[in-house]
Amino acid sequence: MSQNQWPPVVNTNRLNAPQLDVPPRILLGPGPSNAHPRVLQALGMRQVGHLDPAFINLMNETQTLLRYAWQTDNQLTVPVSGTGSAAMEASLANTIEPGDVVVTGVNGYFGERLCDMAGRYGADVRRLEKAWGEVFSPDELRAALAEHRPAVLALVHAETSTGARQPLEGVAELCREAGTLLLIDSVTSLGGVPLFLDAWGVDVAYSGSQKCLSCPPGISPLTLGPRAVNKLNRRETKVPNWYLDMSMVGKYWGSERTYHHTAPINMNYAFREALRLVAEEGLEARWRRHQENAELLWAGLAELGIGCHVPREYRLPSLTTAVIPAGIDGKAVAVFLRENYNIEIAAGLGQLGGKVWRIGLMGFNSRRENVTLLLAALKEALARQ
Amino acid sequence: MSQNQWPPVVNTNRLNAPQLDVPPRILLGPGPSNAHPRVLQALGMRQVGHLDPAFINLMNETQTLLRYAWQTDNQLTVPVSGTGSAAMEASLANTIEPGDVVVTGVNGYFGERLCDMAGRYGADVRRLEKAWGEVFSPDELRAALAEHRPAVLALVHAETSTGARQPLEGVAELCREAGTLLLIDSVTSLGGVPLFLDAWGVDVAYSGSQKCLSCPPGISPLTLGPRAVNKLNRRETKVPNWYLDMSMVGKYWGSERTYHHTAPINMNYAFREALRLVAEEGLEARWRRHQENAELLWAGLAELGIGCHVPREYRLPSLTTAVIPAGIDGKAVAVFLRENYNIEIAAGLGQLGGKVWRIGLMGFNSRRENVTLLLAALKEALARQ
Repeated sequence: MSQNQWPPVVNTNRLNAPQLDVPPRILLGPGPSNAHPRVLQALGMRQVGHLDPAFINLMNETQTLLRYAWQTDNQLTVPVSGTGSAAMEASLANTIEPGDVVVTGVNGYFGERLCDMAGRYGADVRRLEKAWGEVFSPDELRAALAEHRPAVLALVHAETSTGARQPLEGVAELCREAGTLLLIDSVTSLGGVPLFLDAWGVDVAYSGSQKCLSCPPGISPLTLGPRAVNKLNRRETKVPNWYLDMSMVGKYWGSERTYHHTAPINMNYAFREALRLVAEEGLEARWRRHQENAELLWAGLAELGIGCHVPREYRLPSLTTAVIPAGIDGKAVAVFLRENYNIEIAAGLGQLGGKVWRIGLMGFNSRRENVTLLLAALKEALARQ
Repeated sequence: MSQNQWPPVVNTNRLNAPQLDVPPRILLGPGPSNAHPRVLQALGMRQVGHLDPAFINLMNETQTLLRYAWQTDNQLTVPVSGTGSAAMEASLANTIEPGDVVVTGVNGYFGERLCDMAGRYGADVRRLEKAWGEVFSPDELRAALAEHRPAVLALVHAETSTGARQPLEGVAELCREAGTLLLIDSVTSLGGVPLFLDAWGVDVAYSGSQKCLSCPPGISPLTLGPRAVNKLNRRETKVPNWYLDMSMVGKYWGSERTYHHTAPINMNYAFREALRLVAEEGLEARWRRHQENAELLWAGLAELGIGCHVPREYRLPSLTTAVIPAGIDGKAVAVFLRENYNIEIAAGLGQLGGKVWRIGLMGFNSRRENVTLLLAALKEALARQ
C-alpha cells in the first residue's frame, strides 16, 4: 500500500492548543480531592512494562497496603483499572447472576446508582428506601433480609451525596443467617473513616482513589472475600463484563500473572504512594485527623449560622452536607468561593438539590488551614449577599 | 458511634514499603511504550474538579485533537476512563444488541478477544479465521458479509499480536451494502500508522493511549459515527454496562455536561498533551517517522539474519514480529536485553508463541537511537548463544 493511495490529511481539527495550565484549586467538594504532592511525584515516574519484575513487585506491595487500609486479609484485593464507578460495577457484575434478588439501601444518589447497575446485570432489585441523609437501622435491615432473602445486600457506608455514615456493626451476622452477601460502597470512607472489613464481616467492598486516599481518580479499590469468591467460581455463565471480570483480573494480580489488560502503570505508582502515606500515618491517626478537622468545620459553620443536614451520630467526617441558610443563593456562594478563593465546594444532588452545599475534607485536604480558610471565605461570601 | 466500640486496628499488612523506584526501561515491546517526557509533566499537574470550567475547556480541546489524530469529525469522540480493553468493550457494548450477528476477523489475539467480549453481550459471533500474521482480502470480506449479513463487522486494523496491518480501503462500501457497521481496533495504529476513519467510512473505532500516542495506559480513545450513534439511540434495552454506556458518557462529553462518573483528571491532562504532540508534529510527518525507523529496524534485523513474520506489504511500522532464528533461545535473549540494556521486547502469543519476538517502535520510542541500540544489543545477545 503506497502513500500515493492515501487520501489527503484534513487539518480542520489540528488545534493549536496552549500548554496545559489549570487554576490552583483547593478541592473541598465531594471529590476529587487534591492529590498529595508525593502522589503526584510518583505519578510522573518513568514507566516499566505491566509484566516487568519491578512492576510485579510493586503490585504485591500495593495489595498488602490496600489490605491494611481496608483492614482485611482478602486475597482478591486489587485496584480496578478505572474510576470508582468501575469498581462499583465490578462489585456487582462479579457477584450477581441473572435473577438474583439484590436488596439495595437507597438513601442517596449512590444507592440509586447501585440499583441501576444491578438491574443491568439481571438482578431482581428490591429497593429499601429512606430519606436522603438518613441511615438504616438494624431492625429495618433485619426485616428486609427476612422478607426478601436476597443474594446480595448492597449498602452505602459513606453516602457522598448526603454525608451520612451507615453503621455496619452487626449487619453481617444478619446477612449470614439469610445466606446473603454483604456488599458495601466505601468510596468516601476508605482512608478517612473507621472501617473494618473483616471484623465487620463485609463480603464485597469497593472504593475510589480520589477521596480520602488523595490519589487522582482513575484507579479504584475492590475486594472480594471468600464467600464472594466462591460464588464467582461457581458461576454457570461468564461474567457479562470482560474488562471487570475478576475471575480473569484476579489471575493477573494472583500468582499466575496471566496477562488480561494492560494495567494503568502510572496510576498504580500513584495509588501505591497514596497507600504508603496511609500506612505511614497509621489508620487511627488518620481517622482522628479527619474527625478533628470535621469538628472544627462544624463548629465554624455553626458560628456562621449554618447547620448540618445529617445528625451528628451518623455524620461523615469526610463529607459534610451544610444547609444553605434561608435567603442565601447557594450557587452564587460556590461561584464566589471558586472565583475569589480557588476553593471548590459542590451543590446538593437529588432530594438535597438547592438545599445544601457539599463540603469535603478528605485525605491530604483534611487540614486545619483549609478549614480556617474556607470558613473565612464563606463568611465573606455570606456578608456579600 | 464512639471510638470505644471499634475493634483494634490490625497492623499485619502495614507494610513499610520503600520510596517508589523503577529501572529506566526502554519499552520496545508491544506496549506500553515510554510516555513522552512532556506527557509525564502534564500528568503530574495539580488537579481541578471534573466539572470545573477549566476542565470542561480541556475536554473540548482533547476531543478536537483526537478527531484530528483519527481524521474524523464524529461528534461522539471521547477518551474512555480505562485502558484500551475498556474502549474495546465499550465499542461492542454500545453497538451490539442481543442476537445481533457479529462477524469478527480472527487472525490474532485481539480478534479472539473481540469474539469473547461480543459473546458476553449476547452477539451471535461468526468467526472469520486466518493464520496469525495474515490479513483478510476484499473478496473474503465480501463473501463473509454476503453469507452472514452481520449487524457488525469487527476487524483489527493493527494486530499487536502479529504485526499485521489489515487494509481497510473499500471495506466500508461492502458494509453499507450489507447494512453492517464497520468496527475497528486501532490500538497500535492511531498516531503511528496511516488511518483515515471518515475517508474510509469506519463507523466505530477504539484505541489505546500507551502505544503510538506515548501516553501512559489508563485512558483510551473511542469514537462512534452517526450510524453507530443512531443504533445506540434506538436501543430497546439499556446498554448492559453502566460504566461504558455511551448514551450517558456522551452527555458528560457533550453540551449537557451531565455528571456520569468522575473523569480520571490527570490521565486526561496527559492524554491532551499526547494529542498536542501529534498535532504539533503533524500526522504525515509522524507516520513517515514511524515508517522510516521501522525500515531501519527491518534492514538491521536482516543483517543479523533475522526475518520478519509479516510480508512487507502488510507489515506494521509500529510493531514488528521478528522471527527467532533456529537454535536461538528467544526468552534468554529477551532477558539478556532487559538485564543488560534495560530494553523490553516481548515474546510471541498464541500461534506465534516461541516463534517470534515482538518489537515495538511506537510514538516517542520510534527514534533512531532506540533502533541502533536495540540492534547492537541484539547482536551481542545472539553472539552469546
